[in-house]
Amino acid sequence: MGVEIERKFLVDEAIWADEKPKTGVRICQGYLLKSKEKTVRIRTKTCAQYSKGFITIKGATEGFSRLEYEYEIPFSEAEELLAEFCPKKIIKTRYELKLNEFVWEVDEFESPQSGLILAEIELLNEAQSFGRPKWLKKEVTGEAQYYNANML
Amino acid sequence: MGVEIERKFLVDEAIWADEKPKTGVRICQGYLLKSKEKTVRIRTKTCAQYSKGFITIKGATEGFSRLEYEYEIPFSEAEELLAEFCPKKIIKTRYELKLNEFVWEVDEFESPQSGLILAEIELLNEAQSFGRPKWLKKEVTGEAQYYNANML
Repeated sequence: MGVEIERKFLVDEAIWADEKPKTGVRICQGYLLKSKEKTVRIRTKTCAQYSKGFITIKGATEGFSRLEYEYEIPFSEAEELLAEFCPKKIIKTRYELKLNEFVWEVDEFESPQSGLILAEIELLNEAQSFGRPKWLKKEVTGEAQYYNANML
Repeated sequence: MGVEIERKFLVDEAIWADEKPKTGVRICQGYLLKSKEKTVRIRTKTCAQYSKGFITIKGATEGFSRLEYEYEIPFSEAEELLAEFCPKKIIKTRYELKLNEFVWEVDEFESPQSGLILAEIELLNEAQSFGRPKWLKKEVTGEAQYYNANML
């Protein structure tokens, strides 16, 4: 079992542009299922080092937490599943940035919400404190419009 | 990618009882998603030799064929996914029987259709011929009521 505890923020594009890593991972994802209770997501991740595929089941968000089960699958089959079953897809580039003991994931969206940038941090518990990088804007944890599944 | 070409039959319980293997594999399965276009199934398989978990995505049946993608996942996580997301489950025992070059899978259902016995054979193509064991009754390939997903 996995339980995900995440907080999510909008990002100031100009400040972020000065700090962002040179390379990111290109992500393409679609959904076999999106409901209030659960989602089943197919994702490919591609970068200079690898091409990977994943299937991920997530439960409903409760506060900051969410059940999550993720399994790696062959890249070519993930591409087939996306082509066969997911007419709508999200495309984004993910950058990872380690700041103190935390890893920030910053997603720059290309499709469908071109220009949107979201930062996420994964915590050990809901009350854990963390430093706020200067490119962070408003917190949007729990705001439904910023769930990837709701963007399609 | 996988393409499944299967034919399915009802089984004569009395004749089958004389021929069936001593041991089978107990299967528990439920569905994250059931729609006309696709299903996402969670399954556990348990026998004297192993306990395994699987997630399987299947497309719509076209004739005798069906797209199928299956991935092994940890047994304990398959059990959690069934408990968390699948209130209704199928329980059955599967026996495998090799006859000539073919492997027959015979499923004895406990729940929800106690007493139902179905035999399946997987073929290389839709026209391939095969011998019919004497415990075979009526062919039910393509009959919606005998799709496992429709039993729940």
